[in-house]
Amino acid sequence: MDAESLRTLLTDVREGRLDVGTALDRLRDLPFEDIGDAKIDHHRTLRTGMPEVIFAQGKTAQQVVDAFSALAARGPVVMATRADRQAYEAVRAVQPEAIYYERARIIALGSMAASGDGYVAVATGGTADLPVAEEACVTLELLGHRVERLFDVGVAGIHRLLAQRQALSAAAVVIVVAGMEGALASVVSGLVACPLVAVPTSVGYGANFDGLAPLLSMLNSCAPGVAVVNIDNGFGAAAFAHLVLLRVNQRPHERE
Amino acid sequence: MDAESLRTLLTDVREGRLDVGTALDRLRDLPFEDIGDAKIDHHRTLRTGMPEVIFAQGKTAQQVVDAFSALAARGPVVMATRADRQAYEAVRAVQPEAIYYERARIIALGSMAASGDGYVAVATGGTADLPVAEEACVTLELLGHRVERLFDVGVAGIHRLLAQRQALSAAAVVIVVAGMEGALASVVSGLVACPLVAVPTSVGYGANFDGLAPLLSMLNSCAPGVAVVNIDNGFGAAAFAHLVLLRVNQRPHERE
Amino acid sequence: MDAESLRTLLTDVREGRLDVGTALDRLRDLPFEDIGDAKIDHHRTLRTGMPEVIFAQGKTAQQVVDAFSALAARGPVVMATRADRQAYEAVRAVQPEAIYYERARIIALGSMAASGDGYVAVATGGTADLPVAEEACVTLELLGHRVERLFDVGVAGIHRLLAQRQALSAAAVVIVVAGMEGALASVVSGLVACPLVAVPTSVGYGANFDGLAPLLSMLNSCAPGVAVVNIDNGFGAAAFAHLVLLRVNQRPHERE
Amino acid sequence: MDAESLRTLLTDVREGRLDVGTALDRLRDLPFEDIGDAKIDHHRTLRTGMPEVIFAQGKTAQQVVDAFSALAARGPVVMATRADRQAYEAVRAVQPEAIYYERARIIALGSMAASGDGYVAVATGGTADLPVAEEACVTLELLGHRVERLFDVGVAGIHRLLAQRQALSAAAVVIVVAGMEGALASVVSGLVACPLVAVPTSVGYGANFDGLAPLLSMLNSCAPGVAVVNIDNGFGAAAFAHLVLLRVNQRPHERE
Amino acid sequence: MDAESLRTLLTDVREGRLDVGTALDRLRDLPFEDIGDAKIDHHRTLRTGMPEVIFAQGKTAQQVVDAFSALAARGPVVMATRADRQAYEAVRAVQPEAIYYERARIIALGSMAASGDGYVAVATGGTADLPVAEEACVTLELLGHRVERLFDVGVAGIHRLLAQRQALSAAAVVIVVAGMEGALASVVSGLVACPLVAVPTSVGYGANFDGLAPLLSMLNSCAPGVAVVNIDNGFGAAAFAHLVLLRVNQRPHERE
Amino acid sequence: MDAESLRTLLTDVREGRLDVGTALDRLRDLPFEDIGDAKIDHHRTLRTGMPEVIFAQGKTAQQVVDAFSALAARGPVVMATRADRQAYEAVRAVQPEAIYYERARIIALGSMAASGDGYVAVATGGTADLPVAEEACVTLELLGHRVERLFDVGVAGIHRLLAQRQALSAAAVVIVVAGMEGALASVVSGLVACPLVAVPTSVGYGANFDGLAPLLSMLNSCAPGVAVVNIDNGFGAAAFAHLVLLRVNQRPHERE
Amino acid sequence: MDAESLRTLLTDVREGRLDVGTALDRLRDLPFEDIGDAKIDHHRTLRTGMPEVIFAQGKTAQQVVDAFSALAARGPVVMATRADRQAYEAVRAVQPEAIYYERARIIALGSMAASGDGYVAVATGGTADLPVAEEACVTLELLGHRVERLFDVGVAGIHRLLAQRQALSAAAVVIVVAGMEGALASVVSGLVACPLVAVPTSVGYGANFDGLAPLLSMLNSCAPGVAVVNIDNGFGAAAFAHLVLLRVNQRPHERE
Amino acid sequence: MDAESLRTLLTDVREGRLDVGTALDRLRDLPFEDIGDAKIDHHRTLRTGMPEVIFAQGKTAQQVVDAFSALAARGPVVMATRADRQAYEAVRAVQPEAIYYERARIIALGSMAASGDGYVAVATGGTADLPVAEEACVTLELLGHRVERLFDVGVAGIHRLLAQRQALSAAAVVIVVAGMEGALASVVSGLVACPLVAVPTSVGYGANFDGLAPLLSMLNSCAPGVAVVNIDNGFGAAAFAHLVLLRVNQRPHERE
Repeated sequence: MDAESLRTLLTDVREGRLDVGTALDRLRDLPFEDIGDAKIDHHRTLRTGMPEVIFAQGKTAQQVVDAFSALAARGPVVMATRADRQAYEAVRAVQPEAIYYERARIIALGSMAASGDGYVAVATGGTADLPVAEEACVTLELLGHRVERLFDVGVAGIHRLLAQRQALSAAAVVIVVAGMEGALASVVSGLVACPLVAVPTSVGYGANFDGLAPLLSMLNSCAPGVAVVNIDNGFGAAAFAHLVLLRVNQRPHERE
Repeated sequence: MDAESLRTLLTDVREGRLDVGTALDRLRDLPFEDIGDAKIDHHRTLRTGMPEVIFAQGKTAQQVVDAFSALAARGPVVMATRADRQAYEAVRAVQPEAIYYERARIIALGSMAASGDGYVAVATGGTADLPVAEEACVTLELLGHRVERLFDVGVAGIHRLLAQRQALSAAAVVIVVAGMEGALASVVSGLVACPLVAVPTSVGYGANFDGLAPLLSMLNSCAPGVAVVNIDNGFGAAAFAHLVLLRVNQRPHERE
Repeated sequence: MDAESLRTLLTDVREGRLDVGTALDRLRDLPFEDIGDAKIDHHRTLRTGMPEVIFAQGKTAQQVVDAFSALAARGPVVMATRADRQAYEAVRAVQPEAIYYERARIIALGSMAASGDGYVAVATGGTADLPVAEEACVTLELLGHRVERLFDVGVAGIHRLLAQRQALSAAAVVIVVAGMEGALASVVSGLVACPLVAVPTSVGYGANFDGLAPLLSMLNSCAPGVAVVNIDNGFGAAAFAHLVLLRVNQRPHERE
Repeated sequence: MDAESLRTLLTDVREGRLDVGTALDRLRDLPFEDIGDAKIDHHRTLRTGMPEVIFAQGKTAQQVVDAFSALAARGPVVMATRADRQAYEAVRAVQPEAIYYERARIIALGSMAASGDGYVAVATGGTADLPVAEEACVTLELLGHRVERLFDVGVAGIHRLLAQRQALSAAAVVIVVAGMEGALASVVSGLVACPLVAVPTSVGYGANFDGLAPLLSMLNSCAPGVAVVNIDNGFGAAAFAHLVLLRVNQRPHERE
Repeated sequence: MDAESLRTLLTDVREGRLDVGTALDRLRDLPFEDIGDAKIDHHRTLRTGMPEVIFAQGKTAQQVVDAFSALAARGPVVMATRADRQAYEAVRAVQPEAIYYERARIIALGSMAASGDGYVAVATGGTADLPVAEEACVTLELLGHRVERLFDVGVAGIHRLLAQRQALSAAAVVIVVAGMEGALASVVSGLVACPLVAVPTSVGYGANFDGLAPLLSMLNSCAPGVAVVNIDNGFGAAAFAHLVLLRVNQRPHERE
Repeated sequence: MDAESLRTLLTDVREGRLDVGTALDRLRDLPFEDIGDAKIDHHRTLRTGMPEVIFAQGKTAQQVVDAFSALAARGPVVMATRADRQAYEAVRAVQPEAIYYERARIIALGSMAASGDGYVAVATGGTADLPVAEEACVTLELLGHRVERLFDVGVAGIHRLLAQRQALSAAAVVIVVAGMEGALASVVSGLVACPLVAVPTSVGYGANFDGLAPLLSMLNSCAPGVAVVNIDNGFGAAAFAHLVLLRVNQRPHERE
Repeated sequence: MDAESLRTLLTDVREGRLDVGTALDRLRDLPFEDIGDAKIDHHRTLRTGMPEVIFAQGKTAQQVVDAFSALAARGPVVMATRADRQAYEAVRAVQPEAIYYERARIIALGSMAASGDGYVAVATGGTADLPVAEEACVTLELLGHRVERLFDVGVAGIHRLLAQRQALSAAAVVIVVAGMEGALASVVSGLVACPLVAVPTSVGYGANFDGLAPLLSMLNSCAPGVAVVNIDNGFGAAAFAHLVLLRVNQRPHERE
Repeated sequence: MDAESLRTLLTDVREGRLDVGTALDRLRDLPFEDIGDAKIDHHRTLRTGMPEVIFAQGKTAQQVVDAFSALAARGPVVMATRADRQAYEAVRAVQPEAIYYERARIIALGSMAASGDGYVAVATGGTADLPVAEEACVTLELLGHRVERLFDVGVAGIHRLLAQRQALSAAAVVIVVAGMEGALASVVSGLVACPLVAVPTSVGYGANFDGLAPLLSMLNSCAPGVAVVNIDNGFGAAAFAHLVLLRVNQRPHERE
């Protein structure tokens, strides 16, 4: 309830169109209505374009279908991450236009309009990091952003990475997805002048401890300008990059 | 140096406009010059305005002085972080204009010109998080950015935080500095639509494990759009925010 | 055996009604008889109303049936927690009145009479925390308490939580069930003036480390008045709240 | 602003005593004013009697003095925990009535009136746990509660503990403070029918890992009815027990 | 090569039956021959009566059969621990007298003669610890020792444990098997005056971390006289107790 | 109070030598007196010869003096472990006969009579393990046992260890004290047929993690017959060995 | 491309011997050509003989086949490690000469010519370490090296190890593969004068923590000359040993 | 006792100069005498040139002096690592020729003759890693090897590292010393074809956990050919490299 609605309500009371009891009822929950569930969420969604997202892992196919259908009525984009093909088949039965991005493990319906011209470079250390990287890439694309995939540029063959310097330098945001020792984030960070979001993956074994090694590695990066999300959280990195791009792509006069 | 410049150079050589020695000089370091130490660093510094920074912790006062003097000759801003007053006194003896930001534990000389109008909101959970928060604030201010300090808005008194929603919403980037359980990052993240950089601090005791508790808490934030830097790394958060702001403040025609 | 019985025994010895050997026999085990198995347990069960409980996880259906039948003979309520449907089917074959609370994974027979009017508010961060929360809710209901379910009020959408302040404030005890980063406990704790029992759940992935993140988060809560039980231990939180309610619901003259 | 005030405001608008603009101004900040800083805190303090508390560890004597003086103006009780004698001397210089509880490491000024007749039994495993236990005891006493100290009743000499069964059984809440392996919590829990708050201490060495051993031990207690606070957090246990006692000591007609 | 063989060799040299070069060859490897594989092992087995043991976990049924048959030819007792029924069926096909101790998960053939009259008391915290406890009990029985089983005497019902004080006090060695928080070891240790071997089990969940909680608890036992073996290592505890009993049961004149 | 005393008491009552009131007084506390503090401890001390021990670390010199004096009145041996020279000087001022074992960091007064002829071999990996080893050796000697010191026989020079095989083999118990990687326990265990108590020490750096490395190493020993005590707990190992020796040195007819 | 070549090129351009287009081509990739993808890899492969290797774990049989076929066209040796029989059958269908080393879990095609006469001794603690050891052995053999297998020489039976001193001493490199407590590395290290690569394995249970115990043990080895690779990383140890052997087997005049 | 002594003994027996009994006595302990302390160590020292080394950390100046003097009598080189200046002054008082390498924290006396022409490249990530790197460099130089220092070539400025490719490629062994995230090891490993020994350092803070981050990073290196030593163990890396160089520098005909 914004200032205008409040003014209308008060004027209605003054002019007798609304009795005090009814006005009171409407106002009683104002402190919460104003920051109430639907409104804020709607505002936020409109402003950020962030679709409602279902974390499908650990849910039954039916639960995914139910959540998907509920959300499909509300917004322009619906996404379910960490979804397997079985969940997709169940969703498709009721939402025939839903698309399955197999490598990204994402079921999606709809997408945002293309945003401004800044793009996100997504680099990975090895091919095993691909599912996490694709989760980030597809999420960004569904949100209307352009993505440059720079896969398999691990530091053990530094020349492969250096060959991509141009694409890295011009990005608005860089996402580095790496398992094993996660050294890629530090090296890339030294090559670019834009914010770098690092995603440690659980790719590895033994003293990798399911992603602890690259997580610690990235948190300790000797290069400033690196921030880290949870292990395997490709979606989180994309959501973060999306928020940066929203600001970057804003026309100056749009800025608050 | 791109293909076109190379072609021009070679044509100049062929047509006698450039003698071989000069061309050789230009090309000699090409493999490395292009990615060479000084140049790249210079390029990067010019583009990003990131000053050379000395991590003073664990260094003697003399070592800080030496590093400080060496860098003072090179760029517009010199900073030493995690510096105590003793180091400052030593620096001031040779660099009388150096300033000491006591709470931030930063010695600085010079500062960048004011950047665009986006600002960074820095929120802390409690007063004990202040040194880390000030490290971030002062770093950003030295880099020419505007900072809004929202200190002591921990989640145990949620109303204090909600009272600052306006200041949080309008920020280009939000930095959340919190120890104990680090819950502030998640709550703030749900209130804003901009990127949020979370800094866990080592404030706490017992099962805090020197900052492990808020670190894990922030990495597991239930709100998308949160990225995390190392424990107590206020400087790192500022450096990251700075890179975001550089992109945000760029005029559209300046963008690559 | 209290002082009076002892006096009687000694008088019987003195007056020859009891020979020394028999008296000796009665006295020999005195230290243990008084704190003997059945007696204490019976007293405790009668006083607390806490049913005997079977932890079904890791037991075969037959083992659950055997334990269930053995306990059914003894008390007014029998419960098996962490039980799957298969175990329930086996129990029902011999205990037809047994009820299965599917979401809570509890098999139960009988229940306690309604206790006093204090109630427990059970809040969860997300829908994935529901099985643990229901384990707490159903346990409390079987013990005769009233429960207010406040599910899916995670801190990323703080308004949903604030909208429930009334229900939280009036509770005698609040149980907060949350995975991910577990920030909900701290925020709720700042809103209420009653004891808060926090239950970290293993909901999450990566640096969640199977519930370690919310566990540490809750132990480090910046708000006083929070105590924590084991990861996923909905039953433990309910048992604790039950003991608080027993004291709260006692009439003053009943108090020792 | 409660319903009555709102009704008055609306009636004033209707009857022309208040113009729409002014009414709008008053209502605009309603959502936050109602949950504004001072008001809520005051309400909470009044209702719970929980004094404002200063965590003195890591603060200079001057910082403790400043905080102490600021709070002394506001409420009936001021406490600084983890305070050394030097901080006390500094406080006493400006607050001559301040008292220093040396073993509890608490500086206090004022205390609450005696509450109802329920008391808290505080048991410790060994003498080294005493500072943490005293922190809990003194905090409770300052808040107006009666405390029964049952110190040095560790499980290696079980008879000492059993000799205190009477005092344990009659308590409204039991706090168990133990380092080393922390087994005391489980044993006591089996002897009482009231809520038990366990405080692991950092007493121990080697594989104790600064309190991790008793912390895990207490979280895994085989006896239901145990909840745990942070390592060495005697104050937190007292705050929790205080909230339980508030409910227990309420007269029935006072209960919401 | 024992003293006698050496003397013969030297005599042969002296009397010219063996030339120096050949004698030198025979002596060169003496240091290792004397401590060669078979001899030492045989000596050790004879002296200790410890059967050769197969750790069946992770081995195929065929691998267990092969190892079992190989060892059956060598000694009076053969044991395979952590063996499932399938492995047993395979063993029985070739070793019809082999016996399967289902709860202990041990396949055995033969047993040692009864040793002296000292016995081992094996106490457990709960029924879930039974497989580990039985592994210890059956191992000891196969080695000729008497075992007193004191199962399900966890500390949450301390009277059950105290009722067994007699049986505990008279034991030569006590083995305590406990999961959850492992407090039983400390309590029992305070009741007996013999060596106590503690076996943490992986029974528990959440912050139990697969046996880490009772392991740390037992290592930090506040009662002297407790030593600890690996998590779930019932066999190791039995082997240790066996070595103690060997010494205890030795007649004085047998002692070295 | 044993059966005989009870019979006497009852006979006295019967025969009028003791009135009922007095008998009642004596019996009233029987349940606890029998397991009461002083008595049981006395019984236990008499049977085991274990002196009362003060853990001096973290205590002031005055606290050590007070505890020492209190215990000196009670038993034949008093010990304070982890004591520095300053504490010793303070003790000597009031207990002139007290002796300081500097390397063992033990202050002692009195000692037990020599026990049977079994001895304990104490082996260390390196010279830095010496303080912990001496704590074990001196404790054993004060308890009347013979000790064989086999220091600096680390596995990196296996011949030094093998040269001590004779002394190891004949011991009743072996204590192995080792830091770094703690491999010594496994190697020694393969050489002896007696129980081996392993003491990890905090000697090392880096990935030693203050004794975690040898602790885990010893718990995972591939040789059966190894049990482990806490890091640096030389006293605990000695206490354990003492209990074994008590059983070993008992004459057969003394055994229960 | 050094200064001289550059000068020649430029002079050729100037004097018309080289047209601008061709010069451009040569220069275009200069920065990267020198460190370009193919070239470096080719150089490296040729110089080291290290085959391209597929890490088959976590890949489908089809993915292994595709990668295998792609690499088969490029080099003399193709290897897939951590491959199961199913993957092998799929590979064999298209690469009939591929061989499966079942215990090593390696699929291989081709092999290197025999290198110099230095050999690698591979020692294991127990039979369960065999798959990791064989991964190392087969890798080395495919690379043209001679391997001496010294299996099952764990430290609990030290004589078995000592009996192999000859074979250990003469090796150019020793690889020690051990799980449980990993003590073997330290003992072997004291017996040899060559570099020792230690491979911790995940063989063990409980406090082994999936290989953490031997990993820490090996990193803390009291014997200098030990370096460690990741848990279960038999291939990594072989790769390291291969690089040592390349240097050792080089003829002096081949050395740079 | 070497072959020659044995031959003499046997000849003496043959020729009657020694009776069988006496010869037997001398031979009896042969197994151990032959592998006795001094001899084997001497053999090993002669063969490897590894000086006896004192780990000075945690030792008093006097203890360092004593050990130093004892060793000075025995071999050509004596070293004390982790020694401070105070220890050096004490050593110099009795060993005037001893030299102190301040940055390396090494006191040394004497040095080995120059070995073959292979050299070791020692690279560091930052200046803070210098003490550990110098410990490695000085150790190698004292052992007669040539060292190439490539300091401050961290991955955040990859060009500095690439500029040193020539020096890295030609090394016989590379040692990489790095703290923070330790990424340098992986990057260097991809540039060279020789064995790489990685030394994690404790340089860093927060989630570095005193060197755990670079330790895990290096163990998980995505590049084969990396082996790791303990945190800050510059000496260990040098010892390992020394053993490699011994083999590399051997003339072919010297090889066993």
